[in-house]
Amino acid sequence: MSDEVLAGFVPGLEDVVAAETRLSRVDGKAGELIIAGFLVEEFASRASFEETVYLLWHDVLPNLEQLADLREALSVRRALPRPILDLLRAAASERAPVMDALRMATGSLSLGRPDGARAEDEFYDGALALVACFPTIVAAYWRLLNGEEPVAPNPELGHAANYLYMLSGESPSEELARALETYLNTVVDHGLNASTFAARVIVSTQSDTVSAVVGAIGALKGPLHGGAPGPALDVVFEIGEASRAEPYLRKKIEQGERLMGFGHRVYKVRDPRADVLAAAAERLYTTDADTNLRQLALEVEKTALRLLAEYKPGRNLQTNVEFYTALLLHGLGLPTQLFTPTFAIGRVAGWTAHCFEQRALDRLIRPQSAYCGARNRSWVPLEER
Amino acid sequence: MSDEVLAGFVPGLEDVVAAETRLSRVDGKAGELIIAGFLVEEFASRASFEETVYLLWHDVLPNLEQLADLREALSVRRALPRPILDLLRAAASERAPVMDALRMATGSLSLGRPDGARAEDEFYDGALALVACFPTIVAAYWRLLNGEEPVAPNPELGHAANYLYMLSGESPSEELARALETYLNTVVDHGLNASTFAARVIVSTQSDTVSAVVGAIGALKGPLHGGAPGPALDVVFEIGEASRAEPYLRKKIEQGERLMGFGHRVYKVRDPRADVLAAAAERLYTTDADTNLRQLALEVEKTALRLLAEYKPGRNLQTNVEFYTALLLHGLGLPTQLFTPTFAIGRVAGWTAHCFEQRALDRLIRPQSAYCGARNRSWVPLEER
Repeated sequence: MSDEVLAGFVPGLEDVVAAETRLSRVDGKAGELIIAGFLVEEFASRASFEETVYLLWHDVLPNLEQLADLREALSVRRALPRPILDLLRAAASERAPVMDALRMATGSLSLGRPDGARAEDEFYDGALALVACFPTIVAAYWRLLNGEEPVAPNPELGHAANYLYMLSGESPSEELARALETYLNTVVDHGLNASTFAARVIVSTQSDTVSAVVGAIGALKGPLHGGAPGPALDVVFEIGEASRAEPYLRKKIEQGERLMGFGHRVYKVRDPRADVLAAAAERLYTTDADTNLRQLALEVEKTALRLLAEYKPGRNLQTNVEFYTALLLHGLGLPTQLFTPTFAIGRVAGWTAHCFEQRALDRLIRPQSAYCGARNRSWVPLEER
Repeated sequence: MSDEVLAGFVPGLEDVVAAETRLSRVDGKAGELIIAGFLVEEFASRASFEETVYLLWHDVLPNLEQLADLREALSVRRALPRPILDLLRAAASERAPVMDALRMATGSLSLGRPDGARAEDEFYDGALALVACFPTIVAAYWRLLNGEEPVAPNPELGHAANYLYMLSGESPSEELARALETYLNTVVDHGLNASTFAARVIVSTQSDTVSAVVGAIGALKGPLHGGAPGPALDVVFEIGEASRAEPYLRKKIEQGERLMGFGHRVYKVRDPRADVLAAAAERLYTTDADTNLRQLALEVEKTALRLLAEYKPGRNLQTNVEFYTALLLHGLGLPTQLFTPTFAIGRVAGWTAHCFEQRALDRLIRPQSAYCGARNRSWVPLEER
């Protein structure tokens, strides 16, 4: 059917460089991830999430005053306007998935901000509202799904601590908040993944941050992107005790099943984020969480890596970020349904930073398509079809 | 700062072919637009909008039974669920722009569909709901903005007629409905523009149609994409009478201003859609609308083309689709604030068709980025910054 010359067609845009960015650099061969100039290991366990947001938006760490200003700007935007809470109630009554509810609420985030809490630059104001409200939306919706009333944000608490507080109604320990911040910092940006790219395409038309981030959520919802940190932990639970790890995993591999939590499209050596999260999980599990589960997970990991080397020599399959994400978020008391939404709570800082970068570039992203359909069709009246 | 090799960087992805499609082919040099095998001139004034939707989704014109099924499937999904109407009321109370309201409502379109009105395939069901509800959302919101109650859809009327009916509360003449259908058909698809591309990026993660189309709306909202059919007509209104056209337009051109309604990024000769819309406007204005305005617009067009040839020789600037869009939509009684939303009511058929095409391809769209930021930064404690 087609007579189009497809010389320029690049399926999936693989290896096409679609943006320059100062936000992150992924080197899968070296197992290196730079975020705004820092190796992920250098900053992720040290920065508060507010510091990370400032770093991504301004390319420099904030001083005391700048940090206080940002904390305040987020704090005054953290409560959800009434129409959005109503929408979440309606979604909960239909048991909509959490990511759907996050998309619905986010799409309406241009509503209900009191004039006093508006920055002069609408674009920047939108970015603040998005980062501020993501934890509130997810926590409120989770409580509504469970038949509980939402908990209002606590102005005394920082961003990460507020998320845990709004979920449980209790102020978290410093260790818990720190472990969550480490996770959020670790996943805050990662090159031009599909959700970030969607946000940049949308902003490239001179559209707004809320519109861009709603699009990004839609992309993150997709199973090929949002990943599967839940299933990685399910394997550990199913195994139950260390002695069962080897037979269980052998069977999975011999049946040709993928082992969730191992291997990554980009990283050919160990994902540097896995190390950061493993260290955070170690700290967390010694203080607050179930040490047995961590021991079991380590046994499962060791056995899985040994068996993968045996069955798939030369592939060098390593533990990926999802394995330790699962362990860490479980240790924080988060159910698996909140794993992808919690990922979004971190990544929204990256999405908005890419929005600023794309806005400054001010260039429409508008590729070509090649036509492969019919030609010269003639109209046929309805009664003759 | 950067030591990255940027060999593959293509700003704006210009001339990169990012998809194959059987949905439309834009040939800017020949001034030719094929939509699903038909030249736009061949089908746009003949097809009902439902026929066009079927054509794009199935690559064939429907027979009587298939068309009746699609009309019914759209009809049962046309009413808005209660939570979405509530959301529109909240948006209207804050005087949100129409495209913002369309984004909010669309993001929640996975809500409130009764089980009886759900297709087995969620993806297809979403596409039906999106196409069905766009006119209802826009019409309901416009009435709310104007202090009027929404008008429920009329099951006796087709898709285009329903839009006009829900706006005014009166059944439109057949000529009006036909003129609107011609417009909707004309803009239903146009290659891989930014909104269509955003939808395909989102679906490429195996996400859903509602998520993809919300992203597309966000892109269409941007001034670089959604275009400016309003301003094209404003020029005609400002000129007011034919004798003032030449001095007015000369002044604009000499001041270096762009003449809205003339010239197009892609079409180097006359935009074929302009012809289709001009003919539709001619029919419309002889029956229902203000003949004087059409005469004036024709005079303004003639003068503008003459002056553009004089001031910008060799550029071959032609009347674009926006000029006749403005004339036609004005003739239909639509205010300029509804021009871009009405464009979306047509284009959503193309967006959803691209969603089906991308889903069948099942390949992640995931380009690369080149890092141009700092390296080797070391952490500095807050109090030392």
